[in-house]
Amino acid sequence: MEDLMQKVISLAKRRGFIFPGSEIYGGLANSFDYGPLGVELKNNIKQEWWKRFVQKRSDVVGIDAALIMNTKAWEASGHLENFSDPLVECKKCHARLREDQIQDSKCPSCKGKEFTKPKNFNLMLKTFLGPVEDAANTVYFRPETAQSMFVDFKNILDTSRQSIPFGIAQVGKAFRNEITPGNFIFRMREFEQMEIEYFVKEEEWEKYFDEWLGEMKQWLRDLGVSEKKLHYVDIPDGERAHYSKRTVDIEYDYPFGQKELYGLAYRGDFDLKNHMEASGQDLQYTDPKTNEKFLPHVIEPTWGVDRSVLVAMLEAYHEEEAPTAEEGESAMRVVMKFPFWIAPVKVAVLPLVKNKSEVVLKAKEVFGLLKERFACQYDETGAIGRRYRRQDEIGTCFCVTIDFDTLDDNAVTLRNRDTMAQERVPLDSLASTIQERLYDKNN
Amino acid sequence: MEDLMQKVISLAKRRGFIFPGSEIYGGLANSFDYGPLGVELKNNIKQEWWKRFVQKRSDVVGIDAALIMNTKAWEASGHLENFSDPLVECKKCHARLREDQIQDSKCPSCKGKEFTKPKNFNLMLKTFLGPVEDAANTVYFRPETAQSMFVDFKNILDTSRQSIPFGIAQVGKAFRNEITPGNFIFRMREFEQMEIEYFVKEEEWEKYFDEWLGEMKQWLRDLGVSEKKLHYVDIPDGERAHYSKRTVDIEYDYPFGQKELYGLAYRGDFDLKNHMEASGQDLQYTDPKTNEKFLPHVIEPTWGVDRSVLVAMLEAYHEEEAPTAEEGESAMRVVMKFPFWIAPVKVAVLPLVKNKSEVVLKAKEVFGLLKERFACQYDETGAIGRRYRRQDEIGTCFCVTIDFDTLDDNAVTLRNRDTMAQERVPLDSLASTIQERLYDKNN
Repeated sequence: MEDLMQKVISLAKRRGFIFPGSEIYGGLANSFDYGPLGVELKNNIKQEWWKRFVQKRSDVVGIDAALIMNTKAWEASGHLENFSDPLVECKKCHARLREDQIQDSKCPSCKGKEFTKPKNFNLMLKTFLGPVEDAANTVYFRPETAQSMFVDFKNILDTSRQSIPFGIAQVGKAFRNEITPGNFIFRMREFEQMEIEYFVKEEEWEKYFDEWLGEMKQWLRDLGVSEKKLHYVDIPDGERAHYSKRTVDIEYDYPFGQKELYGLAYRGDFDLKNHMEASGQDLQYTDPKTNEKFLPHVIEPTWGVDRSVLVAMLEAYHEEEAPTAEEGESAMRVVMKFPFWIAPVKVAVLPLVKNKSEVVLKAKEVFGLLKERFACQYDETGAIGRRYRRQDEIGTCFCVTIDFDTLDDNAVTLRNRDTMAQERVPLDSLASTIQERLYDKNN
Repeated sequence: MEDLMQKVISLAKRRGFIFPGSEIYGGLANSFDYGPLGVELKNNIKQEWWKRFVQKRSDVVGIDAALIMNTKAWEASGHLENFSDPLVECKKCHARLREDQIQDSKCPSCKGKEFTKPKNFNLMLKTFLGPVEDAANTVYFRPETAQSMFVDFKNILDTSRQSIPFGIAQVGKAFRNEITPGNFIFRMREFEQMEIEYFVKEEEWEKYFDEWLGEMKQWLRDLGVSEKKLHYVDIPDGERAHYSKRTVDIEYDYPFGQKELYGLAYRGDFDLKNHMEASGQDLQYTDPKTNEKFLPHVIEPTWGVDRSVLVAMLEAYHEEEAPTAEEGESAMRVVMKFPFWIAPVKVAVLPLVKNKSEVVLKAKEVFGLLKERFACQYDETGAIGRRYRRQDEIGTCFCVTIDFDTLDDNAVTLRNRDTMAQERVPLDSLASTIQERLYDKNN
């Protein structure tokens, strides 16, 4: 299992999905950059999420708020006081550790057993706005996207003509000064969230909680995540935040253990109440029918963007025995079986040979045509079998091969990534055939 | 002219395009949040840019790099030493000012004439990674997207099979601790860039410089920016960075003066050379034909995302005398004449009346149909004329009105935002008619 993690990390680096940030300078504390394929994969996920949960719904609107917020917001939300982890230091090797993550009470570095007393270490990244580095100018990068949706609640209510139930959605970065970041893009200090605050009447919270749980399950199916690796963990009484009547952690069997992927929380009116008291602004909602004023309650589904990418890559990774029908093809192939909609490259256009100008010209013509509609790659280097393997490894859904026959019959070979089945398709209907296959609900 | 700025700011706030960040807490030093309409407008711009300059081209690949980079990168790039503004303090009122922005040598607050000696104030936002706030843990948020594309150059070259000329593109946030932010979203401490580093052979730099200048001009036309408000300012010898043989600032006549919008710079091999020396890594490119090794030279076109939004809004804002054909319509209308492709809402569906269930049901059916394909709003509140005005004010391209006749003839009224012309369109062909009009090249 750990092996799978190493294979995915290695493929991610080798093929330009994800590589260490600032790598030529020795990297930077578990930070990562998305490369050419990774950024397309990630954008496909973010854009589908936005389309599904914002644009196609009439009851959800989006925002994009500043990453740095007024410090009073973090006082009101409790983050300034409570958003911390218990930090201890190993007395022997001075490693700094999260007390709650130490297993068997031994230091993971030196096996030492003595630690300093834990102190609360606030996880927010601080900076200074303006020319003087003092307390008055100290501000924080948001540790979650959520609070800006509460702080902007009134502005959105006033301008968007929504009535309850309705949601505010946001996709964006958040920052946590984790004591021990790690596991590739699983825990980074700089990460991205997709989050919705869904405002409801208190008496309807259970109905909408269930509805969003259903939406999250459907999303996971569409992302290609195996049901059997998912755990819907109902957080028991006493372990939930005091204001929450129900919280479900959606956990996944990563190669490094069962850990959090997404979360769904019922937050009551805790946040709006805090911000109303601290700001002195009336954040109540007025029912247009009854004129009743009240603070809405909140259902909060949260998706990690980077974790979505990680899980999608872990699930997609396959090694298969493959027939060696083609020259240069190895008997083993690595294939990223992404659901078609997230695949960074949909189609590769491959001239069978690169030393016949008619074939190459035709291939470029086909490429020109297809790249207007699909994310496409053109590749003419190496034996055709090797090129198929190269495309399999990045999860390209279809390969289109232009050969000598194409010049006569105006048709090409269309190869399916998963079945490796090849069929002859007339150029006239190539784009529409690919379109159909890509958006076939069974894929 | 200043008036136009106030009108746009007020509309942006009133209609949920853009409002002050953390507003219920008194805001935060010229920070702004994009609301429901603003985020769609901004996303339309970013996504079209990505489609045009990354996905539809075979010679440009994208990345999305971490916002915090290894400090060695900022040493190598010169930012740590030189990315600063001259900071002075007024001796009378202690206002902190940028020396190069003081006009007539008078303090803008108190008209004082004496200032402290200027000191170099570094504009990068610093923070601390890890549990100790000391020099070793000090890191900086990037002040530009550019450097990560140079730092990642080798990883991208090794994984993307590109050969020169080719480009690396990125859309993302950057941060500058401006001494005097201001002018709405023109100068914020947290802002977004769209940027390309285009790598060429030294002897071909002029050709590609001109090509990118052409691309930027075409982009500005498509964004709806008047030619006559644009200034292509060739930065003269002695004012350019020492490594640049040509830099063009693309400036715009904002209501507050002629100031920078976009930029295009020829940066030579300055950046790759610096990072190669500082990192000790070989960042040279090997010509696949001649096997010659060399450092590519760079053409850098940069687009401000927030400035694109600002200019699009300033250009779109119109006040017009309008015929008062409809009840409740005022003789004056405010209309945001966005190019259709950036408009946050493409179609509004309006039942003529809201108290006839057949009309309302039909309208909801039409809405259900259209919102699968277009960004849609449904509005049944108020007189139809007032609803047209409401949609004009947010730049909705088309209004579809469902009336009593619709129940008989299965046709609706389609109203064009700019001409206000109304035509009867059968429901069968409504979606395709709208599609055609929206993507008609003349709009």
